[in-house]
Amino acid sequence: MDAQRHPFDPLSAEEVQMAVAITRRAFPDKTCLFRVVTLLEPLKKDMIAFLNLEHDSPNISRQQPPRVAMVQAHVENELREMHVDLDQQTIVSDTAHPGRHAHIDPEFMKSVELSCLADPGVQRQVKELNLPEEATVVVEPWTYGTDGMNDMSERLTMCWFYMRMSSDPDANYYAYPLDLCAEVSSDLEVKKIYRLPSSETDRAEVCEHPEEYDRRKVHQGSEYHPNLTPAPRTTTKPYHISQPKGPSFSIQGNLIIWEKWTFRVGFNYREGMTLHDIRFSNRSLFYRLSLAEMFVPYGDPRMPYPRKAAFDLGNDGAGICANNLKLGCDCLGHIKYFDGFLVTPSGLPVKTPNVICCHEIDDGILWKHTNTRTGNAAVARSRVLVLQTIITASNYEYIFLFYFGQDASIHYEVRATGILSTAPISLSGSVPYGTTVAPGVLAPYHQHLFCLRINPAVDGYRNTLVVEESRAMPLDTGINSFGVGYNTTSTPVLNETGLDLDHTTHRTFKILNESVVNPTTRTPVGYKLLPCYSQLLLAHPTSYHARRSEFGKHAVWVTRYHDGELYPAGKFTMQSEGGEGIASWIENRKEEGRGVRGEDIVVWHTFGSTHNPRAEDWPVMPCEKMVVGLKPVNFFERNPGLDVTRKSRQDGKAVTSLPANRNRRPHPHTQPLPLPPSSQTPS
Amino acid sequence: MDAQRHPFDPLSAEEVQMAVAITRRAFPDKTCLFRVVTLLEPLKKDMIAFLNLEHDSPNISRQQPPRVAMVQAHVENELREMHVDLDQQTIVSDTAHPGRHAHIDPEFMKSVELSCLADPGVQRQVKELNLPEEATVVVEPWTYGTDGMNDMSERLTMCWFYMRMSSDPDANYYAYPLDLCAEVSSDLEVKKIYRLPSSETDRAEVCEHPEEYDRRKVHQGSEYHPNLTPAPRTTTKPYHISQPKGPSFSIQGNLIIWEKWTFRVGFNYREGMTLHDIRFSNRSLFYRLSLAEMFVPYGDPRMPYPRKAAFDLGNDGAGICANNLKLGCDCLGHIKYFDGFLVTPSGLPVKTPNVICCHEIDDGILWKHTNTRTGNAAVARSRVLVLQTIITASNYEYIFLFYFGQDASIHYEVRATGILSTAPISLSGSVPYGTTVAPGVLAPYHQHLFCLRINPAVDGYRNTLVVEESRAMPLDTGINSFGVGYNTTSTPVLNETGLDLDHTTHRTFKILNESVVNPTTRTPVGYKLLPCYSQLLLAHPTSYHARRSEFGKHAVWVTRYHDGELYPAGKFTMQSEGGEGIASWIENRKEEGRGVRGEDIVVWHTFGSTHNPRAEDWPVMPCEKMVVGLKPVNFFERNPGLDVTRKSRQDGKAVTSLPANRNRRPHPHTQPLPLPPSSQTPS
Repeated sequence: MDAQRHPFDPLSAEEVQMAVAITRRAFPDKTCLFRVVTLLEPLKKDMIAFLNLEHDSPNISRQQPPRVAMVQAHVENELREMHVDLDQQTIVSDTAHPGRHAHIDPEFMKSVELSCLADPGVQRQVKELNLPEEATVVVEPWTYGTDGMNDMSERLTMCWFYMRMSSDPDANYYAYPLDLCAEVSSDLEVKKIYRLPSSETDRAEVCEHPEEYDRRKVHQGSEYHPNLTPAPRTTTKPYHISQPKGPSFSIQGNLIIWEKWTFRVGFNYREGMTLHDIRFSNRSLFYRLSLAEMFVPYGDPRMPYPRKAAFDLGNDGAGICANNLKLGCDCLGHIKYFDGFLVTPSGLPVKTPNVICCHEIDDGILWKHTNTRTGNAAVARSRVLVLQTIITASNYEYIFLFYFGQDASIHYEVRATGILSTAPISLSGSVPYGTTVAPGVLAPYHQHLFCLRINPAVDGYRNTLVVEESRAMPLDTGINSFGVGYNTTSTPVLNETGLDLDHTTHRTFKILNESVVNPTTRTPVGYKLLPCYSQLLLAHPTSYHARRSEFGKHAVWVTRYHDGELYPAGKFTMQSEGGEGIASWIENRKEEGRGVRGEDIVVWHTFGSTHNPRAEDWPVMPCEKMVVGLKPVNFFERNPGLDVTRKSRQDGKAVTSLPANRNRRPHPHTQPLPLPPSSQTPS
Repeated sequence: MDAQRHPFDPLSAEEVQMAVAITRRAFPDKTCLFRVVTLLEPLKKDMIAFLNLEHDSPNISRQQPPRVAMVQAHVENELREMHVDLDQQTIVSDTAHPGRHAHIDPEFMKSVELSCLADPGVQRQVKELNLPEEATVVVEPWTYGTDGMNDMSERLTMCWFYMRMSSDPDANYYAYPLDLCAEVSSDLEVKKIYRLPSSETDRAEVCEHPEEYDRRKVHQGSEYHPNLTPAPRTTTKPYHISQPKGPSFSIQGNLIIWEKWTFRVGFNYREGMTLHDIRFSNRSLFYRLSLAEMFVPYGDPRMPYPRKAAFDLGNDGAGICANNLKLGCDCLGHIKYFDGFLVTPSGLPVKTPNVICCHEIDDGILWKHTNTRTGNAAVARSRVLVLQTIITASNYEYIFLFYFGQDASIHYEVRATGILSTAPISLSGSVPYGTTVAPGVLAPYHQHLFCLRINPAVDGYRNTLVVEESRAMPLDTGINSFGVGYNTTSTPVLNETGLDLDHTTHRTFKILNESVVNPTTRTPVGYKLLPCYSQLLLAHPTSYHARRSEFGKHAVWVTRYHDGELYPAGKFTMQSEGGEGIASWIENRKEEGRGVRGEDIVVWHTFGSTHNPRAEDWPVMPCEKMVVGLKPVNFFERNPGLDVTRKSRQDGKAVTSLPANRNRRPHPHTQPLPLPPSSQTPS
């Protein structure tokens, strides 16, 4: 494979610059502030043609689909989205989005913070709090999660107030939430200053004169940074991984080749890491895998806390928030890092280094069998390939990992860590929707809901989602007179819809290619979902939390594929008002009879965690893991990891612990028999 | 700690011999065939006194509870269980169990196999099968899972017939299931020979003349042993783990000390690995953890397949079937092995070497936070301690692992691997309760159900099981007018009962000590269960599968602690008839008003897998994982892994990808503000 850019590769720095230049030329004399310059992935129909050639006839030169950049910019203050054909050097699509908001602009948020602190009203109220002398006030601006109280066409920002009680800038200010919060307008004016609720039935009130800060809340024990905590334990001895012959993977650009797997890694500002054209032994499995959206709604009902409802992808951008993994030794062993490119408001490409890492781990035993007759065992160890990225979204961190197995399985894991979002509470107070994690520090209940977007291509681009359940056969006087029989029911999903999990029926979601039959089992080839059993969105269906997210209503959705249909809570989540997510798509087009059987389908799995904080989650949370799996089901004719390097024991001893030479005494019920003279003897 | 035996330590070889000698002296002139000689764990009340002294006053010499051996032996053909006080050198309890069966005697099974093959009727029928010349018939004897068709007071054995098509004794005979099966009596006579069912509505018939074997079933591709398969892949590069300063654990006898954890490892013939007196930072968490039973019922309704219903602990013994982990490189890194001791029928102690291994693994990130204001991150890696054992139960392997985390969590994982149990099917046939995995080879549907026994001692020996659910607050016009509020309901379980899982309500089972309150959260300290969502037993409640297992009826059980109440399907599972398991205990004593609130309780978690085989599970199955967790919930006042060795980045660069020195352009909505002259400035 040559160094030519692949259609799935993210835009290079040069391509970003080109898209910016083309855009500027289209709007001479107008201010352009660039929010996004990213690859607009090619039309599926073009990519299918390309991929078929790439895989089936690699030596034939193939025409690349048009190389198009998606540019989101404020052009004279109006949010526009342009599709820029980089080959033709022209804008092929230009849409204005009046009244909509692009994702968070960190610079703007910084300005909000400074304006808030500089506001005379804020300054006066801060003085009246009569904070301890060593305190430094910290303002943390958050997006305003729509609650119906304000006009959302204007950008509003919520400012939550904290203080730091140490001069060290890494002191944990979340340990000191203050009673104030402020609403800041798009022109950086403080519109309202609230006193936050102080009891269970309270709500925020516009505040003129806050109560003095209760200095008894000042405490120890809420720091996490190494500079501010006692020396760490020394009991953990070093653990080193070495790969003396290098890694088992081979990487060519963004193409990863590992243990019969091939796939491409992508990256963009919003989804972060994306995976494309995933194949095993050259058979197609998935066209695209990505985290499509996530939602963190808070469950504290008291105004203004319903405004805490964060879409960390749509609002912040998983690519934008991605950590540099090389610093801080986040990974062990032989690591390959991938960089990303974003854009500055002025249109300069910015490299985000080491945002994705790729490395192997050992995962114990892959398979084993001991033949107790001979004592010989065969055992194969499981080597797993890990693709990892980590985002920081204000207080929280999320680690996103894809694991590729030698058993042809893929697992997607989310680890939630970082710091709980905190709110003030009186020293003796409590509320039924939060945990007190330190004196005066409430960690409100909230949920984390993730949506994994799975665009399968199981042995081809026409697949079917089938729901299988295992059910007891009825007790009868015939075939099931013993009452032990069970079988399965299989129901193909015919139309776009949302479905739910049921472990009591072993409800299994299989993605099948009904036109490719496994010659051994004589059933269609497929992959099955191993879901993460999670409580879905708790918020009332009429709430803005529910209306804006939509994907939190069901655990498994299936839709027809549409180019660009990527975000299950809609394209613009910032201060959204609902009606733009996956449930709405389905509802709005259900009359079209959009079948999903034997079609190019997308399966979306919503999973997550109802997080009612524990003291152990403070001051920084040990990772909470959530895992989703995708495993072949009659896709292969046998164990695809059968040929993994294995050991065998040739010691000839029976593995059963009783030694061969033990004293044989007759069984109480019998005498041992002599070997029969002529028979087909067992070993 | 000195080398004195601890009350939880398994019996030594000398103690086994002593128990045997004492037993023999009690029955002079009688034949004694020893089935079990194992530790009878001390009475809880004695252990509590001992442990309190051990932990609180370690330098005070303390009296050990009586050292008692449990001996099961056939004394003149009668099964008896004796409790032998090794200090007093006397039998303190002696119970006969007429009509009951001890666990499998491998020697007897070997005799059954030989008798079956030597039986003239069998030999004639085998001839009539007209097998290929190179075939070797293999008989695999299985316990007879009660089906109501025979008197279970007599030991009966089912013999399933296979053939090997290679002279290599490790050839996979499960690839060639034959149409015959035989019932063999306790005196080694073949009572019946059946022709196995051949179609969906068929059942086995007593057979005189079988059909000839369909030689078109002979095939390639069903071998797994390295000697019989192509050379393995060479793409997997070596991956080495080294611990240059040794492991972080310290082991004194059976006591393990690791990263604030202390606990003791036990081992016995039936449960295999057991864990005792588990503490973290010297606070008591669990008195005992063990796999208490497992059940593998088959879902093929056709007689005689309902006889396939294996209790691999009660029937076979997880200790007896434990693999020697040292051979075949089952573990990596610095490993400590533990041996076990069993007994021969003649009463000799037998060492089972390396049945438990102990080692560390790296599990990625434990916690991380990046302060985006400073760009400084702190990250701690997760080191995990693994205790592992593996059993082989005929065709299947099960790997059992306990993971101890630096976050004070425990996870229990089961990996199922090995070879599917197979039955014959015609080349063109199919049944709705099995998968054809090779020509003529049916892998019937079945379930694996495991029961983890959790005897908590959360900060003491009086605990309460509480069921918590997260529920939306009703939409109203007051406090929840935004419709986003949710809170939790907590219900203590008052009486012994079986309960079920519900992910839709985030139903959480917490084990609390209601008399110890976390001073920060002001809630009782506890540990919560992270269950493995599994379908429960499918077999009809009146079936023998259900009546014999009982624990498969609910996912979470809670009972009052009773000494010796360890096995949720009863003490004698071999050819059992039901009514002896956990549901029966509860039912039989419910009038006694046996409360479980604030008591010494036992929590039992039933979990597993409805296994409808895939082609990928053949010829040897890549591990299927099932995981259960136990995590602290407000047991500690903060993250117990906060002091884990961590890295911090001091590069001063913001982790957000936009460089600090980028060209700042004004936000479309505002001009940047100058810093205010006097204010408490953020960092």
